[in-house]
Amino acid sequence: MNFTSDNVSGAAPEILEALIAASSSGPTPSYGADPLTARVTEKISALFERDAVVFPVATGSAANALALATLAPPYGAIYCHEMAHVNTDECGAPEMFTGGAKLVGLPGAGGKLTPGLLRATLEKAGVGVVHSVQPAALTLTQATESGTVYTPDEVAALAEVARGYDLPVHMDGARFANALVRLGCSPAELTWKAGVDVLSFGATKNGALAAEAVVFFRPELADSFAFRRKRAGHLFSKMRFLSAQLDAYLTDDLWLRLARYANAMADRLAAGLTAIPGARLRDPVEANEIFIDLPEPVIAGLEQRGYAFYRWDGTVIRLVTAWNTEAGDIDRMIADARELSAATR
Amino acid sequence: MNFTSDNVSGAAPEILEALIAASSSGPTPSYGADPLTARVTEKISALFERDAVVFPVATGSAANALALATLAPPYGAIYCHEMAHVNTDECGAPEMFTGGAKLVGLPGAGGKLTPGLLRATLEKAGVGVVHSVQPAALTLTQATESGTVYTPDEVAALAEVARGYDLPVHMDGARFANALVRLGCSPAELTWKAGVDVLSFGATKNGALAAEAVVFFRPELADSFAFRRKRAGHLFSKMRFLSAQLDAYLTDDLWLRLARYANAMADRLAAGLTAIPGARLRDPVEANEIFIDLPEPVIAGLEQRGYAFYRWDGTVIRLVTAWNTEAGDIDRMIADARELSAATR
Amino acid sequence: MNFTSDNVSGAAPEILEALIAASSSGPTPSYGADPLTARVTEKISALFERDAVVFPVATGSAANALALATLAPPYGAIYCHEMAHVNTDECGAPEMFTGGAKLVGLPGAGGKLTPGLLRATLEKAGVGVVHSVQPAALTLTQATESGTVYTPDEVAALAEVARGYDLPVHMDGARFANALVRLGCSPAELTWKAGVDVLSFGATKNGALAAEAVVFFRPELADSFAFRRKRAGHLFSKMRFLSAQLDAYLTDDLWLRLARYANAMADRLAAGLTAIPGARLRDPVEANEIFIDLPEPVIAGLEQRGYAFYRWDGTVIRLVTAWNTEAGDIDRMIADARELSAATR
Amino acid sequence: MNFTSDNVSGAAPEILEALIAASSSGPTPSYGADPLTARVTEKISALFERDAVVFPVATGSAANALALATLAPPYGAIYCHEMAHVNTDECGAPEMFTGGAKLVGLPGAGGKLTPGLLRATLEKAGVGVVHSVQPAALTLTQATESGTVYTPDEVAALAEVARGYDLPVHMDGARFANALVRLGCSPAELTWKAGVDVLSFGATKNGALAAEAVVFFRPELADSFAFRRKRAGHLFSKMRFLSAQLDAYLTDDLWLRLARYANAMADRLAAGLTAIPGARLRDPVEANEIFIDLPEPVIAGLEQRGYAFYRWDGTVIRLVTAWNTEAGDIDRMIADARELSAATR
Repeated sequence: MNFTSDNVSGAAPEILEALIAASSSGPTPSYGADPLTARVTEKISALFERDAVVFPVATGSAANALALATLAPPYGAIYCHEMAHVNTDECGAPEMFTGGAKLVGLPGAGGKLTPGLLRATLEKAGVGVVHSVQPAALTLTQATESGTVYTPDEVAALAEVARGYDLPVHMDGARFANALVRLGCSPAELTWKAGVDVLSFGATKNGALAAEAVVFFRPELADSFAFRRKRAGHLFSKMRFLSAQLDAYLTDDLWLRLARYANAMADRLAAGLTAIPGARLRDPVEANEIFIDLPEPVIAGLEQRGYAFYRWDGTVIRLVTAWNTEAGDIDRMIADARELSAATR
Repeated sequence: MNFTSDNVSGAAPEILEALIAASSSGPTPSYGADPLTARVTEKISALFERDAVVFPVATGSAANALALATLAPPYGAIYCHEMAHVNTDECGAPEMFTGGAKLVGLPGAGGKLTPGLLRATLEKAGVGVVHSVQPAALTLTQATESGTVYTPDEVAALAEVARGYDLPVHMDGARFANALVRLGCSPAELTWKAGVDVLSFGATKNGALAAEAVVFFRPELADSFAFRRKRAGHLFSKMRFLSAQLDAYLTDDLWLRLARYANAMADRLAAGLTAIPGARLRDPVEANEIFIDLPEPVIAGLEQRGYAFYRWDGTVIRLVTAWNTEAGDIDRMIADARELSAATR
Repeated sequence: MNFTSDNVSGAAPEILEALIAASSSGPTPSYGADPLTARVTEKISALFERDAVVFPVATGSAANALALATLAPPYGAIYCHEMAHVNTDECGAPEMFTGGAKLVGLPGAGGKLTPGLLRATLEKAGVGVVHSVQPAALTLTQATESGTVYTPDEVAALAEVARGYDLPVHMDGARFANALVRLGCSPAELTWKAGVDVLSFGATKNGALAAEAVVFFRPELADSFAFRRKRAGHLFSKMRFLSAQLDAYLTDDLWLRLARYANAMADRLAAGLTAIPGARLRDPVEANEIFIDLPEPVIAGLEQRGYAFYRWDGTVIRLVTAWNTEAGDIDRMIADARELSAATR
Repeated sequence: MNFTSDNVSGAAPEILEALIAASSSGPTPSYGADPLTARVTEKISALFERDAVVFPVATGSAANALALATLAPPYGAIYCHEMAHVNTDECGAPEMFTGGAKLVGLPGAGGKLTPGLLRATLEKAGVGVVHSVQPAALTLTQATESGTVYTPDEVAALAEVARGYDLPVHMDGARFANALVRLGCSPAELTWKAGVDVLSFGATKNGALAAEAVVFFRPELADSFAFRRKRAGHLFSKMRFLSAQLDAYLTDDLWLRLARYANAMADRLAAGLTAIPGARLRDPVEANEIFIDLPEPVIAGLEQRGYAFYRWDGTVIRLVTAWNTEAGDIDRMIADARELSAATR
């Protein structure tokens, strides 16, 4: 019963089957010149209702860092939430890929940036002043690091501020599917229609082995990407094995089904735990992550009984559900937490 | 009938099965803290008869660039064959990962560096002179870009020169298996016993989907690798899926069987083609690559009949066999070539 | 009457004379192999009572960025005050020179870091965790960006925290002289005796044309510096012209006299301005910078009368005095400010 | 009697006087917003008969590396002569500033690139192929590292090849003045009229203390330069002291007079030495450098008598004259060489 992250889960059967099928199809052009890779671009373009330029890569950090390096010069500033994965959990990948651009982390409740603070920050950023790194990109995390989601309107409001400074907008969509199914809008509405120019479209956490797609909605921004990807060791020779994962992910709404399931499990777990005396959600559960404050004896008891999760901050713990979390495990955990709670009163 | 590269082949069934098994084993610690990854380190250490520090990555370019960045400072010079993959086919990956070190490409017959030229180059390199990039590493490609192999003695002679300048020695073993089975020596004899400090141990070309291991035989050199890997987006969250490939690759000598087969197919193809009037091997066939000079009408005719391969230089073509090349395809190609040859006389 | 910065001042006559003398001394070995450069090292070592490794460079940004790049790996974190010049005014120079290390800016009253916040930050920094940039260096600005100074004890307390995490300590001493003469301690007490390992020893703002010395008190940290300096285009062929400036700067206490004078002018100006109704120093004047809150009509009036200075934040303005600020200008400004103040009441 | 380089010379009196004047002119806006810097741009634009964007920097390596970084992306290839200063004597500065671009050094007699080899190299460079670094810039050294000069026609022929691949052309003019006065053409004819887009316009070797100007003839290429210069620590706060040097350098044809003199001294020395039995110029003397093959006893004897110069290759030595080389020293050296030659026969 491991709730530390959705990346402790395996891969969906449909995706594994796609790998086997891809392997059996005989000699295949390498480095992305294969039919599967072309099909992924078509599918993503159809899904997002826009001709997109699509680059499969294997990790979310690669997707983000390559996308940002394509947008920002070495003397650029990239605006993000102070808790954003790119700022805190990638060991400086964006800095490496951009050649030393600066991530400017801004605070914001619920893991979300606000247009007001973004505007105020940009106003003081020193555009054109050689002493200052130059505003170069905005990156939003969807779902956020707090398990919340930006609505299309919230995205649009931030993108509008960015646009006022000619900043392209990147979205780190490591949990894009989870956000989307919660919001019930279309992929287009949550991205380019709201002003997003480039999306790191995640699949790994939601049932792939290791596959993400970098999706450029403005093709003119993508010019250097292919060279940067190769140069970073992220161009797979047997690319079909990345594309096969993405292809299966997008077939028959697999990606949406997996995300809906993970979200439902998060809801179920949150509902059970919040009923415990003293429990309090730190943030609303809007994707598949729960940040909840629990009495210390309950936390300690759960750990002792073998439940794995992160202690986030004091007595706030993080619990993440996945596409294959079992309902029985959820229910068992809730029951255990209740029992522990009762015992401590 | 595609002989353009061994990376047009799919993945070996044993390796695909290992992925499925890895996926079914329940929640698994991410980022390499899983049992499979530990097992891969053990297996590689046993195989190479030395406690090694092992890092799985997904591509050969990543393996090489990360290894070299761990060895060479930004102001370093990395000595390689002028035709080495790191120098000509990675879009500057080593330069990116090292922060701008300089690859010094040296000529050498048969794709091999020679101790004499290496020594002469190092003597003039300006050690300690601030105007000169500083000798930092030697990298050898095994098998070479010309389809030849370095013997353990040849490796040792080069490594001895390097050692004289305190240079660590890296081996790009994208086709290490093919070289090893040809030479009939032990993995240890071909690496650390001959002076190799770090090996990019390739699996992708030889039957994996996307998996390589960077193997440090001198653990003290590996200190920064883990951070560099993460920062480059090459640390997989679901690492078990890289490790599962490597684990299966090393089980029951699968890797050696696959390489022996690919080499045998290369020998068979080379034997057939060299019998054609006017044919001449540019280099001896010592792994699974053939560089052969053929009469232009034969080349053109083969292309017309649907055989795919690279025109390397003038009428020299490159043919690469793989772990799953079919003998029937080989024989058909030879027959076609003979027929084309006869028709042109 | 320009109080925007001390860098609007020219060069001290003694330093100009030293350039002329250096030029007349006949052919001189280039790139630092000249006697003047050797003499500068000796003088600095004597001054700081410790054998130091000394590298002259021409700008403060170069001094800081080269020093930090010598201390921090690309995956490193460098701790600094959030307002530090390296963090806000060098267009990302430390990021460029380090290959993408991360500056972690911390708040602190009066422009000073506090041991408590530094320790708390380091405790959460994720030492050894691959997802996190790794603590690599601490950099202090002396005098600070707020015109205050760290006492030797304050430096020592911060350095002790850093030492607990094996972090070397860098001091950006662009206004080191101004701080030193205010504190009345010895150069050694303010640097290595308090735990500083590397000092950017500024001269430009205090009367040189363009000269700073990077001073390593722990020679073993300096190994890569000479290569990094050359590679960054900061090794002067006619090095004697940098060294001549530093040599004259350190002769007959010129540097101390110039700094004392600049500080005295700042005191005089501050004393005069604080007497104005509504005036309030934002920070104590401890070097040659004044941050003072003045009534808007006074500020506007001074601007109108041709006084140049920076509006820092709202009605806080920054005034900087230099080694050659004329007392008459100070007195005139005070008189004007009084007059303006009186007129607005 | 030091002929090792022109950088062993001091600074011209006119330039030193300009520094003193610049220092006396009262408070002056920093970072290049001063009148002297504006005047330098005007003078250079007039001199080159074209509105140019001009950036003063202090060293030739900075000028070259910043110019190339402005032209080439990190995944770019920069074509140069294999012996070019940027390739062999700057410790990898272009690689650092570009973020890891690749210098492709080509051979060529007399230190000069040839259009034929450049074209052949570009044809095989893999334009648009992600595995290959992408052709990004051509850089020529004028005068060359062999002491020869490119004629305007030779420059134009190379630039035409570059233009065919959309490559901007950079000229490293560390000894531009020496080349120009030899050729007797106009600055415009030797640069933009022949296809040069960016010039590193050297002054240091020819009588300045430390001053070069990067001159963009196509302003649209210069967009990122100012940020890159700042970020590299090459923006001087007291910029007037760089500009003053350049201003004096360009006043009353000082730069041409100094270069003519240095060239004349080289001619005088070459004429004397070539008369010695067994002497042979390796390259024609077209600027202020002499590469001459002399009998070993003559070389050894000269060294013993205190003449300083570089042994270049075997018995080829390099002798460099400067703006202030004394004719008496030249004549003395010739006499000594004759005497040594006579004694050995």
